[in-house]
Amino acid sequence: MKVKFLLKDSEIPKTWYNIMADMPNRPAAVLHPGTGKPVSPDDLAPLFPMPLIEQEVSSQREIPIPEAVRDIYTLWRPSPMFRALRLEEALGTKSKIYYKYEGVSPSGSHKPNTSIPQAYYNKMSGRKRIATETGAGQWGCAMALAGSFFGLEVKVYMVKVSYNQKPYRRMLMETWGAKVVPSPSRDTNSGRAILAADPDTPGSLGIAISEAVEDAATREDTSYALGSVLNHVCLHQTVIGLEAKEQMKLAGDYPDVVIGCCGGGSNLSGIGFPFLRDKIAGSKNPRIVAVEPSSCPTLTKGIYAYDFGDTAKLTPLMKMYTLGHDFVPDGIHAGGLRYHGDSPLISQLRHEGLLEAQAYGQIAVFESAMIFTRAEGILPAPESSHAIHSAILEAKRADEEGKQKTILFNLSGHGFFDLSAYDDYLNGRLKDLDYPKEKVAEALHRLPKVEG
Amino acid sequence: MKVKFLLKDSEIPKTWYNIMADMPNRPAAVLHPGTGKPVSPDDLAPLFPMPLIEQEVSSQREIPIPEAVRDIYTLWRPSPMFRALRLEEALGTKSKIYYKYEGVSPSGSHKPNTSIPQAYYNKMSGRKRIATETGAGQWGCAMALAGSFFGLEVKVYMVKVSYNQKPYRRMLMETWGAKVVPSPSRDTNSGRAILAADPDTPGSLGIAISEAVEDAATREDTSYALGSVLNHVCLHQTVIGLEAKEQMKLAGDYPDVVIGCCGGGSNLSGIGFPFLRDKIAGSKNPRIVAVEPSSCPTLTKGIYAYDFGDTAKLTPLMKMYTLGHDFVPDGIHAGGLRYHGDSPLISQLRHEGLLEAQAYGQIAVFESAMIFTRAEGILPAPESSHAIHSAILEAKRADEEGKQKTILFNLSGHGFFDLSAYDDYLNGRLKDLDYPKEKVAEALHRLPKVEG
Repeated sequence: MKVKFLLKDSEIPKTWYNIMADMPNRPAAVLHPGTGKPVSPDDLAPLFPMPLIEQEVSSQREIPIPEAVRDIYTLWRPSPMFRALRLEEALGTKSKIYYKYEGVSPSGSHKPNTSIPQAYYNKMSGRKRIATETGAGQWGCAMALAGSFFGLEVKVYMVKVSYNQKPYRRMLMETWGAKVVPSPSRDTNSGRAILAADPDTPGSLGIAISEAVEDAATREDTSYALGSVLNHVCLHQTVIGLEAKEQMKLAGDYPDVVIGCCGGGSNLSGIGFPFLRDKIAGSKNPRIVAVEPSSCPTLTKGIYAYDFGDTAKLTPLMKMYTLGHDFVPDGIHAGGLRYHGDSPLISQLRHEGLLEAQAYGQIAVFESAMIFTRAEGILPAPESSHAIHSAILEAKRADEEGKQKTILFNLSGHGFFDLSAYDDYLNGRLKDLDYPKEKVAEALHRLPKVEG
Repeated sequence: MKVKFLLKDSEIPKTWYNIMADMPNRPAAVLHPGTGKPVSPDDLAPLFPMPLIEQEVSSQREIPIPEAVRDIYTLWRPSPMFRALRLEEALGTKSKIYYKYEGVSPSGSHKPNTSIPQAYYNKMSGRKRIATETGAGQWGCAMALAGSFFGLEVKVYMVKVSYNQKPYRRMLMETWGAKVVPSPSRDTNSGRAILAADPDTPGSLGIAISEAVEDAATREDTSYALGSVLNHVCLHQTVIGLEAKEQMKLAGDYPDVVIGCCGGGSNLSGIGFPFLRDKIAGSKNPRIVAVEPSSCPTLTKGIYAYDFGDTAKLTPLMKMYTLGHDFVPDGIHAGGLRYHGDSPLISQLRHEGLLEAQAYGQIAVFESAMIFTRAEGILPAPESSHAIHSAILEAKRADEEGKQKTILFNLSGHGFFDLSAYDDYLNGRLKDLDYPKEKVAEALHRLPKVEG
């Protein structure tokens, strides 16, 4: 039986799919952090090149992918979609499980789908330098790779605890030519202020974002770049789902449920939005499922409200599910899912009931990751393993109900840089870290006061 | 311009190519370490299942690949071949550079091309358990992966210095279910003897082979498995070159030179033998180039003679280029190329002038690896980077001579587990370690006395 579904290079999508054209309600406005009024394109111009700002607010359904971007996509796209036959056998399920594999990119995750066009538009707009932040390092690596393709200098503010504990991703960024500093750093005002207050802080994504935004805002030649959350990032990632739809056609199938892990929302948007289009149009009715860690349960336990994207309150206010902009999540192994907020698009679609959210503890997630890797051979990233876990539960539930379902999940990256986490799991050193309910109430008090 | 050349799943080769059918002279006999007489299949039966022993001595040109093996190959094969256009631009060369990329396998190198059939034949022959050794860990990972696909227990004797310095590959093997011990271990007589003499020994591949061979020889349910050197290993790897020949046809091209790094010889055989067939037949005249580190220059400075494959003299005697079976190479970063001997097939073909050999220092090799990764995006393994370096020199030489050449090299694996080596390179901590000429004369005295 066929287990691999490949497209030709000529079938790499020629346009991205912009879900803002099809959402039942217009996306909530993004507000200026000073005035509380909707931001204008000019407000964002110090941070982003104009083509990306236009994409951020566009309501055009199909947005052309530049030829130079498709050329680089060709190095690993179209990515393969697999039928997980060996996993189905290991589970003894009657359901069909498919996965789209994004770990084939040079940096090992779906992130270059957006770092490449971001670098391209910056280059075209005359910017010479990009400042960005990274937590676990997936995004920083993707941006370093993109910078090396387009000859842009890349400065990465890497959360200090990751900088110290995960030297390999730092080294990978440097190999591609990026400059990496532990955040908080002495290179920005916000970094220096935080270090003055607490020299031993482990840092957080919120702090690193503050530093990168400040760097970009204060240097003419420099843009800021973000690897998730923003609308243009979600847009670029739709190549995943657009390809997957064609691959499902090759398989003669259509998913009952489409699953992605969700931190800031980029990989879930990528796999989910093109299928969500069918749901909104009413032509199909797939369930779209966001899976997050129970230690950072933004969509499942957070509040849908305006909040900052960073700790120093430098970013615009976005309406999103949030645990509070100063929330510092526990150090779980799925570092890419440790963000206090979420994509405003994902948040609004969740709020409107168009997608579901689930949260799981990391021990159960690693258990499923082990079943997957021993059946399918591929070692998954801990982030992606949240989607695996949900897919396995989905199949088991269908068996219990005597149903056969078609399940599609996004395997957003490989786990070669996460082996110490597997080692911890195999040696019983992993802990499940829950987010206590009382924290939600606390977070509410910390939210900015705006009309939304 | 097209940069990626893909085949369909249906174009995965249906047979391996056995160069023993076409060699100008019959392969030199393998000798029994006790008697000095040619070994019989029965001598090898305690170590290997019969189908692999038959492949070891077969003179059949095309050997069918079992359907179950092709099924698993499908998870990553056919592997892509790329035209390195961006590298060509970076070099400003007029030559065309192509590379076959084997880093797409689940364990990240070409090694599963043979671990999968080895596990398959062992399973079919009723063996329950495989004992093997690993140096840097590429082979151990591939065997662990194969064991997990076929439900075989895998025991890996991992060279102690690598076990301690490269925990990630050890963890990867364990994630796929293998048992890994540092070698020398207390689990074998040879391991205990070496530990008694020198408790602090860093171990070597030769010692680890002794332990794995002893383990397999003393347990009925257990086979030994080797990831390089042997004829059946070289045979299985020919899927690389067979695919590459079809991909060169798609590119409308044929290589003037085919390059592979060479430790035990498995990846060079893989890319090279199918092209060597054309050379032997006289239909084409490609140069086949083996590239080794100057610190372990078996083909360029070793002696062509009968020697043991391991330190404890447990293996049969093979006629090969060797630096002496008790040679312990310096700890360079391309751990996969640190073997005192070489494939007898590669050795004989080299001796007969059908392939060339080159040796380079690791600093020059990393320099070329950096040029490659910043141009092409893929981070290469240090082993594979030897082939990159040779390809770059080849292109530069052609430019100097005013020629345009077509160069093909095998990118045998990615470098995600080798980032500390890149870090050492970037921070000026790498050393070039030469193999002093006087050592060759010493090695001569240590060789076993046999007629060859």
